Amino acid sequence: MISLADLQRRIESSELSPDAAVAQSVQAIAAHEKTIGAFVCRDANVRAASKGPLRGIAVGIKDIIDTADFPTEMGSKIYRGHQPRGDAPVVTLLKQAGASIIGKTTTTAFAANDPTPTVNPRNSAHTPGGSSSGSAAAVGAGMVPLALGTQTGGSVIRPASYCGVAAIKPSYRLLPTVGVKCFSWTLDTVGLFAAGVEDLARGLSAMTNRPELLLGAAARAPRIGVVIQEFAGAPEADSAAALQAAMKAAERAGASVRALVLPDIVAEAWRIHPIVQDFEAHQAFAWEYRANYDAMPPLLRGRLDESVGIKPAEYDAARSVSNRARKALRSLFEDVDVLLTFSAPGAAPKGLASTGEPRFNLLWTLMGVPCVNVPVYVAAGGLPVGVQVVARFGDDAGALNVARFVEGALKG
Amino acid sequence: MISLADLQRRIESSELSPDAAVAQSVQAIAAHEKTIGAFVCRDANVRAASKGPLRGIAVGIKDIIDTADFPTEMGSKIYRGHQPRGDAPVVTLLKQAGASIIGKTTTTAFAANDPTPTVNPRNSAHTPGGSSSGSAAAVGAGMVPLALGTQTGGSVIRPASYCGVAAIKPSYRLLPTVGVKCFSWTLDTVGLFAAGVEDLARGLSAMTNRPELLLGAAARAPRIGVVIQEFAGAPEADSAAALQAAMKAAERAGASVRALVLPDIVAEAWRIHPIVQDFEAHQAFAWEYRANYDAMPPLLRGRLDESVGIKPAEYDAARSVSNRARKALRSLFEDVDVLLTFSAPGAAPKGLASTGEPRFNLLWTLMGVPCVNVPVYVAAGGLPVGVQVVARFGDDAGALNVARFVEGALKG
Repeated sequence: MISLADLQRRIESSELSPDAAVAQSVQAIAAHEKTIGAFVCRDANVRAASKGPLRGIAVGIKDIIDTADFPTEMGSKIYRGHQPRGDAPVVTLLKQAGASIIGKTTTTAFAANDPTPTVNPRNSAHTPGGSSSGSAAAVGAGMVPLALGTQTGGSVIRPASYCGVAAIKPSYRLLPTVGVKCFSWTLDTVGLFAAGVEDLARGLSAMTNRPELLLGAAARAPRIGVVIQEFAGAPEADSAAALQAAMKAAERAGASVRALVLPDIVAEAWRIHPIVQDFEAHQAFAWEYRANYDAMPPLLRGRLDESVGIKPAEYDAARSVSNRARKALRSLFEDVDVLLTFSAPGAAPKGLASTGEPRFNLLWTLMGVPCVNVPVYVAAGGLPVGVQVVARFGDDAGALNVARFVEGALKG
Repeated sequence: MISLADLQRRIESSELSPDAAVAQSVQAIAAHEKTIGAFVCRDANVRAASKGPLRGIAVGIKDIIDTADFPTEMGSKIYRGHQPRGDAPVVTLLKQAGASIIGKTTTTAFAANDPTPTVNPRNSAHTPGGSSSGSAAAVGAGMVPLALGTQTGGSVIRPASYCGVAAIKPSYRLLPTVGVKCFSWTLDTVGLFAAGVEDLARGLSAMTNRPELLLGAAARAPRIGVVIQEFAGAPEADSAAALQAAMKAAERAGASVRALVLPDIVAEAWRIHPIVQDFEAHQAFAWEYRANYDAMPPLLRGRLDESVGIKPAEYDAARSVSNRARKALRSLFEDVDVLLTFSAPGAAPKGLASTGEPRFNLLWTLMGVPCVNVPVYVAAGGLPVGVQVVARFGDDAGALNVARFVEGALKG
C-alpha cells in the first residue's frame, strides 16, 4: 500500500516531486485496475498541485460524490452519464488542500447492497465489501494513498476490514455530505480510507483544517472498554480472534482493558437503525422509486418494497430511542476513552454476490460517533480482519490516537 | 388569494374539477406575472392529477429545489440552464399527494441576500422579502394556493409577513432537504406558503402523510408566552403594533397570555447563528466560491469574504451554545404551549435593493422549532404585517393549532 504520511515526508524533503508521487498512483492503477476493477472512471493525465499539505496525493472518490470533472453515476443506470455541475464540498476541500482527484471509485448502486464487479485486492475470489467497494480496494491494492467513501450502515469500516486498510468514519457531519447522494440524512457519513492510522489523521486534518487531528505523542495508557454487541449476533471465529489479539496487544502495551456491557437502550438503538434508515430512504429515493421503479437496483428496490409501510410515528419513536441511546453512550465514555469491537462479522465472504453484513457497524453510525478500523491479522486465504475503535461524539482525535496505539501494539 | 382548503372542499364535492382548479392558477399567473415577476419558469400546459389529497392544487417551487421537469438555476448565473436529473424528495412528495407543479419561483441567488426583480404583490414599490421571494409573492398575488420556500435565516417567515400570507417553517427535517441547494445543513429548512393556516396544515399533512397535522377542534385556551427578543434589537412601530393586536385578540378569545424573557443562553444562541451559518456556507459553497468567484452573487460573496477566517473551534463552540439553548428552550415550553413574537422588524422595506432583515427569525431557525406566520393587519401603503407563533421542536401540530386560534381571534 502507499503511505500518505511517507509520501508527505518525501515530498516535504524534496526527495520526491508531487508530480512523481501522483505518477506512482497512475502507474499502480495501470498495473492493477484490470484485475481489481476499483474505478468507474479515471484521469490518466492528472497533475499534482504545487502547494498544500496534500500536494502529490492522488485520491479516489466514491461515485456517489459529485465531481465537476468526472461523471457521477451512483452505481446505477438511472444516473448513466450524469455530469454534476460542481464538486461536492468534500472534493473541493481535498483540492484546496492540494490533493489530485485521480478518479471515481466503484460503489454499490446508491451505496446500498447491489454489488459491483470489484474484487478483494487480497483474494480475488472474495468481495471487497461495500458499499465503498472501489475506495477500499483501491487503497488495499496500493493504487492510491487516500480514498473517500461513505457509511450509512457499515459501508466504510466493513470494506476496510475486508481489504486490510485503515479507515475512519468520522463524527457525524465532521465532513459535509452536501453533494453526496443521500440514502439517510441522519446516518450518511463521509469517511476516509488509507494505508495506516497516521495517514487517516493527516488526510482528515488537511481536509477539515483541524490541526488537533494530527497525532501527537501516542496515547500511553488508554482506557479501553471492549464490547461484543451481543444484540448483533455472534461473530465468526476470525473476528473473535482479531478482537482477542487486539485486546491482548493493547494490554501488553499498557492500556487498561475491560469488558463492558452496553445499556439496554443502546441495544434498542441497534434494533431501530433500519427504521431510521429505511424511512428516510423512502424520501431520499422518492424520485428514483416513483419515476424509475423498473431501473432501480434490485436489492435496494426489494428493501424499499419491504419497508414501504413504515409510519411516521414509528420513525419518530425510533428517533427518540436514538436520542436516549446517544445520551446513555455519552455516560459510558466517562469511564473509558474508547470502545473496542468487531469491524465486521468475519473475513470477506467468498464470491461477489454479497458485500457482507453491516451488523457490527449499524449502531455506531446511528450514534454518530467516530470509528476507526485497524487491520489486525491475515486469516486463511490471505484475507485480512480488523477491529474498530469507537470514541465519543466529537472525539475524532481520541479515536485516531487510540487506533494508532492499537496499531502500534499489534506491530510491536 | 386562493385557499387550498376551499379548493379541496370544492373538488371533493365535485363542484370543481381538479383541472379547472389548476386552470384557475394558470389564468391568475397569466394575469399577474408580468407585474409581480414571481416565476423563473412555468408550465402553462400543466395538468391535474385525478387522485390524491392535493389533486387540483397548483404549487410553485423555489428555484433552489431540484426539479426533473424544470431547470433549477439557484438564482445564479453559475447554474444557468442547469437541469437536475431528478426531483427533490419534497417535489416528489407533492406529486405523490396529487399536486401539480406549475413552475419555479424566484429566489435570491443561492437563497442569500442578493435580491430578485420580484415585487411585493400588495405594493409594487416594496420588496416581497427574501430569500423565498417568488413563493411568497405568488401566493400573496393569488396565483397559486401553495408554494415551497426554504429558510436558513428568515427566508420563509419574513417574506410571508411582508406579503400578507400564512407560512410555516416546520421543525428541522420534518421535510427533507435532499435535492435542495445547501447553504447551511444545520439551518436549512423547507417551508410552505399558503393563504391561511388551515391551508398550511392541509398541505403539510398531505406531504408528510401525518394526519395529526390536520387541524382538529381549535385550541380553546392556549397558554401563550410573548417574547420580544430584545437581543435582536427593537421592532419598528408596525411590528410592535401587530404583536400588541395579536396578544389582545388572543386574550379576548380566551388564551392565557403573558410576557416571557428568554434565558441568557438563548440570547447567546441568537448571537452565534451567523457563525454556524457562515462556517457551513464556506463548505456548502466551496466549489462555487473557489471555482466561480467572479460569478458569485456580490452580497453573498461579500459575506463569505468577511467570514473566511472562522475557525473550526469557534464553530464547535457555537454548536455547543446552540445545544444548550435548545435544552433551555425545551424547559420554557413546559409552562407555555407556544411563544408569540415578531415575524419581521416591520412592514416590507421600500425598494428592491434589500429583502429586509431576518433578525427576529435567526434564533428559531437555529433552534429547529416550528414557526408559523399569521398575517395581523395592513399598515400604511397597503403593506401587511404578521406575527409568528413558535412551538417546541416536533410540535408542528401545536404551532398550527395555536396559529389558527390567533388567526381566528384576529378576525373575530
